[in-house]
Parts: sequence; structure tokens; C-alpha cells
Amino acid sequence: MVNKLWCVGVGPGDPNLITLYGKQVIESSDVIFCPVKSVHSESFALETVRKIIALEGKEIVKLIFPMTTKEDKARPYWLSAYEKIKEKVVSGKKCVFIVEGDPLIFSTFNSVLEIINQKKEFDVEIVPGISSFQIMACRVKLPVVDGDEILVIMPASMKEKSGCRTAQLRDDFEKILEISSTVFVLKSGRVMNQLMEALSGRENIKVFFGELCGTENEFISELNDDLKSRENHYFSIVMIKKEEKEVDFGLAEGKERGVRASQSVFGRND
Amino acid sequence: MVNKLWCVGVGPGDPNLITLYGKQVIESSDVIFCPVKSVHSESFALETVRKIIALEGKEIVKLIFPMTTKEDKARPYWLSAYEKIKEKVVSGKKCVFIVEGDPLIFSTFNSVLEIINQKKEFDVEIVPGISSFQIMACRVKLPVVDGDEILVIMPASMKEKSGCRTAQLRDDFEKILEISSTVFVLKSGRVMNQLMEALSGRENIKVFFGELCGTENEFISELNDDLKSRENHYFSIVMIKKEEKEVDFGLAEGKERGVRASQSVFGRND
Repeated sequence: MVNKLWCVGVGPGDPNLITLYGKQVIESSDVIFCPVKSVHSESFALETVRKIIALEGKEIVKLIFPMTTKEDKARPYWLSAYEKIKEKVVSGKKCVFIVEGDPLIFSTFNSVLEIINQKKEFDVEIVPGISSFQIMACRVKLPVVDGDEILVIMPASMKEKSGCRTAQLRDDFEKILEISSTVFVLKSGRVMNQLMEALSGRENIKVFFGELCGTENEFISELNDDLKSRENHYFSIVMIKKEEKEVDFGLAEGKERGVRASQSVFGRND
Repeated sequence: MVNKLWCVGVGPGDPNLITLYGKQVIESSDVIFCPVKSVHSESFALETVRKIIALEGKEIVKLIFPMTTKEDKARPYWLSAYEKIKEKVVSGKKCVFIVEGDPLIFSTFNSVLEIINQKKEFDVEIVPGISSFQIMACRVKLPVVDGDEILVIMPASMKEKSGCRTAQLRDDFEKILEISSTVFVLKSGRVMNQLMEALSGRENIKVFFGELCGTENEFISELNDDLKSRENHYFSIVMIKKEEKEVDFGLAEGKERGVRASQSVFGRND
């Protein structure tokens, strides 16, 4: 008896960005669970998988994860998803839960995983996937982080801490920009205009906008005013990259870049 | 004529974590460039690829990237690597540069990419790969980030800003811990004891140590004093995860989790 659930991250939409292991797990499964927004919705992860894996003979089970930030509204759906998974897993079938991107980075699987970890009724194996920010960076063709740099990945909205006001949230964003070299702001579609305002007038940053990165309908551009009129999309990312002074590779001899010492945050490095 | 370089991230070491597209690009290549520390070193990326792709008939070119944080020392090697790549690319051969993990996240490819972007002598296509922090999280089986949470990925050491002292760097680390839900500290091996000290006594965090995640010699554990005597390894990661109050899924009825409002950093969300 298997008594185990696999969760496979199928990447951003291009089926060829699935890992070899992820493909193998899905191919050898009896039951495929896929997240949908509502009962009549299609599963984006399943559409991705369908392009390269024959699904005949496999049982497909849609699990509803409603689009809400209200946990008390979502929780019954998470529990219901868990119960459906458990029923199949304990029946001895090989079950796989497929999700877009990476299963642990802003994914619907996270809520189910918390229940699995608490109830401990069956085992789980998680297979990583390419996250949309990774393919966006590959398209932009700029280093994400190198050497001593810091990367931040954040959603466009954050929870208000108790008693905290928007000013505090803006302060947090300032701190993030100050500390990091590169920031990816996920799900930025609904706040594009505000985000552009917050970034306008800043020097030495490059800003890119990406939509549906890694799918057939991918759109990527430098951030510009034309984007203000663009219809907002859930699968949108803004990449903010601080520009360092360029190294003059063409005339390397005799020119020196100011080399700064590297030091540990935690103490001496050597 | 191709006149293009591919760069493929081959993931953390398990060849089955290569993407389908990455495998296909490597298989169809004439020349494989791989980074090594010195002339007699083996390439970790090549060892990974060799396990699943037949390399007969392909030209393997080692490129030396010395282990140094001094840019003036490293730069001649970057330029030399670039020239070797250019020679093969303009000859019309299909060339692929393979790197561990993801090509744009703390990878040797970043320095070569900067030269390619400046010189514009040939095109480049970058294929993302699974980064070691992703597979570590899959093994730990805990959500990385969910909902409104913020993820930070940073190296253990950071460059001193001009005139800044260690105290400032420590301040930065405090800010990072304050703002984020999850932090991955990469290349943490050499400063494990200091890092453990910096984290000791903190409440509501879980800390994990990972070494060679995604390889046959993978070692993952909760952070504990036994690790102090462990020999430091370059491929080590510390995962710091803030613990939220647990949702009681077992007894959902009648119990409510404090639901906090979600608000955009940039303005209103709706």
C-alpha cells in the first residue's frame, strides 16, 4: 500500500519546463488532483500537463480553492480537499496533486500541506517546479542575484499588522527596496498604477512587467506608461532591479572597479 | 548559423530535477561549457548531466571560475570564459553552458551574462533550473511563502557599504528578519556558529540546516548544537521560518482564527 501523496509543481505553463521526475510521477499516477477556482473552471496545471502526458485511464479530481483572502471562508474548502485526497490515498492508489509553479511558493498546495502535517494520516513527497519569477528573469536576461546580493519575493498586498496603517506598510516596502538588490512583486496586476507611482522618480533601478510568463500568451516589457491602460491580470509580476555601476569589460586593462570588502552579517567570514 | 548561446540550469544535483526542455537543449548541443573552480577540478553540473545524457561526440569545454570574492582577480577569468564561448558560438556550433541550480540565482553564469549583454556579439537563451533552496523546502515539507508573506534569499556574507560597519550589517539582518516570513541564508557553512548565535533565544521561529540538498549526500536537520562541530560545507543553506499561530483544522467548527485584513503596500487593493 502506498499511503502517500505526491505534489508536483508543473512550472509556469510551458509543459517542457516540468522536471523529468515530475513528469515521471504524474505518468505513473492513478489519480490526479488539480486545483480550480470554482466547479466549472478549468485547471491551469491540468492544461499544462495534458499537452505532454496521456491522461487516459487516470482519474482526474478537481479540488475547489476559491479566490478569497478570507481564511474563514476558504477553510471549509481546504478541509474538503484534504478529505477527498485522503479517501483516495488510503485506498492504495498512487495519487498526485499538481500545481502551477513551485508547490511551496504561493501555491494552493500550502493550505492542504498544513492539514497533512497536522493530521499525519499519510505521507507526502513534494517535487519542486519552476516558479514564474524564474522564467520571467530568464526572458529579461539579467542576473537576478549575484555575489552578496539579496533577493526578495513578495505579493503586492500584505496583511495589516494589528493596529498598523498603510503608512507602516509603505515603510516596509521602503525597507525592502533599501535592503534588496532585486524584488519580484507577485500578483501586481490590480495595483499596477499605485506600484508605478511608488517607483516613479527613483534613480538607478530598472523595472520590468511580466504577464503569464512561461505560457503561450506571455507578455514582458519594461515598465512604462502604456501599461497603465492594460487590463490587469492575476498572473502578473513586476521585477525591480537595482542597477550597479557597469563594469567596463571592453577595456579591462588599467581600469579598476572599486572593490568592496565582503563581510559576514553574522561575524567574521574567515 | 545559430549565433546563440543556451544556458541551462541543471538543478541541485539530482539529474531528474532537470527540466524536459533543459535536457533537450543539452542533448541537441555540439559543445558543452561547464564551470570549474580550477583546471583540475570536476564540474558538478557536468557530473549531474552525465548521469542521464550520453556525452559521446560532444565537445566538453571547462571554464575556470576561481573561488574568490575579489572582482579584479576574477574578471580576467570571466573575460577568458567569454572569449572561449564566443569562438565556438560564432563557428556555428550549438553551444550550451550548464550550471547548477538556476542560471540567474547566485550562479557563475551571471558574470558571463553581463559581458554578453554589454558586447552584444551573439544572442543568448536562458533555461531556468530548480534552485537548491526549492528542493530543501520540499524535503522540510513546510510552506515557503503563502498569501501575504515575504520571502528573502540572501548569502551569508554581504558587501560592506562604504563606511559601514558590521553593526550596520547586523541591523540589516534584523530588518530582514522583521519584514520576512521565511529567509534562506545561502553559503552559510563558514559562519554557522555566528549564525546560530544571531538566531539563538528568538521565539516563534523554526530553523533548518541543509547541506548538498538534492544530491545523494544530502543532509537536512533542524538547527541544533550538534551542527557546531560539523565540518562546514560550501553547499549549505539555513532556512529560517517564522511560525504563525497554528490553525486548528481538527476542530474547525466554532473556532475562528484571527483574520487580518489584507491591504496593498501601494494603495487600496480593490
